[in-house]
Amino acid sequence: MSILVVGTVAFDAIETKHGKTDKIVGGAATYICHSASPFSKNIKLVSVVGDDFPKHEILKLEKKGVDTLGLQIKKGEKTFFWSGKYHDDMNIRDTIETQLNVLETFVPDVPKSFRKSKFLMLGNLMPSVQQKVLDQMQERPEMIILDTMNFWMDNFLEDLLKSLKKVDVLTINDEEARQLSGEDTLVKAAKKITKMGPKYLIIKKAEHGSMLFGEEKIFLTPAYPLERVIDPTGAGDSFAGGLVGYLSSCEKINFKSIRTAILYATAAASFCVQKFGTEGAEKVTIAEIEKRVQYLKEITKV
Amino acid sequence: MSILVVGTVAFDAIETKHGKTDKIVGGAATYICHSASPFSKNIKLVSVVGDDFPKHEILKLEKKGVDTLGLQIKKGEKTFFWSGKYHDDMNIRDTIETQLNVLETFVPDVPKSFRKSKFLMLGNLMPSVQQKVLDQMQERPEMIILDTMNFWMDNFLEDLLKSLKKVDVLTINDEEARQLSGEDTLVKAAKKITKMGPKYLIIKKAEHGSMLFGEEKIFLTPAYPLERVIDPTGAGDSFAGGLVGYLSSCEKINFKSIRTAILYATAAASFCVQKFGTEGAEKVTIAEIEKRVQYLKEITKV
Repeated sequence: MSILVVGTVAFDAIETKHGKTDKIVGGAATYICHSASPFSKNIKLVSVVGDDFPKHEILKLEKKGVDTLGLQIKKGEKTFFWSGKYHDDMNIRDTIETQLNVLETFVPDVPKSFRKSKFLMLGNLMPSVQQKVLDQMQERPEMIILDTMNFWMDNFLEDLLKSLKKVDVLTINDEEARQLSGEDTLVKAAKKITKMGPKYLIIKKAEHGSMLFGEEKIFLTPAYPLERVIDPTGAGDSFAGGLVGYLSSCEKINFKSIRTAILYATAAASFCVQKFGTEGAEKVTIAEIEKRVQYLKEITKV
Repeated sequence: MSILVVGTVAFDAIETKHGKTDKIVGGAATYICHSASPFSKNIKLVSVVGDDFPKHEILKLEKKGVDTLGLQIKKGEKTFFWSGKYHDDMNIRDTIETQLNVLETFVPDVPKSFRKSKFLMLGNLMPSVQQKVLDQMQERPEMIILDTMNFWMDNFLEDLLKSLKKVDVLTINDEEARQLSGEDTLVKAAKKITKMGPKYLIIKKAEHGSMLFGEEKIFLTPAYPLERVIDPTGAGDSFAGGLVGYLSSCEKINFKSIRTAILYATAAASFCVQKFGTEGAEKVTIAEIEKRVQYLKEITKV
């Protein structure tokens, strides 16, 4: 089933205690596409870059089955750039620099051939841009997943709340769930947030795993236990990619299939953080993901 | 099977965002005994209080099947007192006051009838005191569980490392695991710590659940999801109580039985934090614990 992915395609410069990169390729949509590609060869990308963005990186996506017809390349403009430095505790990071560049004026234009996609993955982006993509769909996708972050809650809450009414799954982290709901405990937060619209809520807790709420049920799973985390950038996006990728192969979408999808999402994220940038997400195979899913099942079984 | 519990019996004064207590009964051993009592009526306590400690609180323990012959009552002296205040994020607390009182000169004296106990639960205490109890055992207990904290790692590391060589299970939290091992990731930390002596390591992650390492296997479980946490004091001790209580009813002690015990420990801790002080641990029944264990199994099953 076809997956339409919207989000940033970007340059990042990242520093963690394990090293430092120059400008490398990043962006929510890049991570999502790479992480969804082991599951699907029917991925469509809507995003924007400047003409400084390397052609071979676009070709890399196309070779993996990503249709880049919806990727606008702005002549004479520069690609979105973010640089950040992670603390020794990699759950904390400081943004060093953000250059919006092409994102400042980005108006998504969903190609006609993309408008009947069955799955819509709204990667982390300004809520009004996510909304514009949704508005251009010819028919409602079978499943809409929205990922967002605290920055949009701080600055564009109203737009975000409007979008929430239309989505099936919302993915945010634990702090964001507390912020959005005004509740301390995640159980209470989830009750409030699922009343805002999303049928399902996935709360991502980084190294502590994730929680699924929906159909008045709960599912809790730990993160994949790793000996070494090199670079957490893109972990949440890779999670989203694994999630939508796996779901696109399911006959039915319900609590049960989303529960299983979360294991695949967890495995996808675990490969991402073992390398700087998108390398981990790019190289992983479906067999490697399956192996980690099996291991996750083993180590959580009583 | 008999369980010997060593640890503090104390007064606490606690403040959380949900309220503030006067001097109430607390202490690691108190929580452990109450939380183990739904599983066993063969619990023996070694600890110390001053003669300011209320008799009816001792009777309460005895009524639950705790033999208090090993509880020294020091005439003219005062019971150990701790007061603390939790931040809005209840994972953080400030100690307001600590009065060691009777603990300053505490030399544990294990009654003869206690010296063949099958289970030894060394609750959080000065490592040399834990060691003195171990030395007085007539035969090696079938299982020795040791709980400790960062304060002892900071100040009495050598003593602690000596004890670690003799124990079967060590329970510490994630920060303490990082401190003790010098490793970032808990997987690496566990590898190092299990080489220091304990056959099994349980890393407690508060609201994020716990991890079991041993026999070259891993088991991960989330915390019991609660809508409201009133007072986290004693959560780790109640976890230890549930753990040793359940294990004392097992025919074999191995990775599999400890894995199941962790679910009971998790449930025991969840009742503790729903009330101020020991009230939650005191009142819970085995049926209520079983119900939460079943629920934990449901919400973690794929």
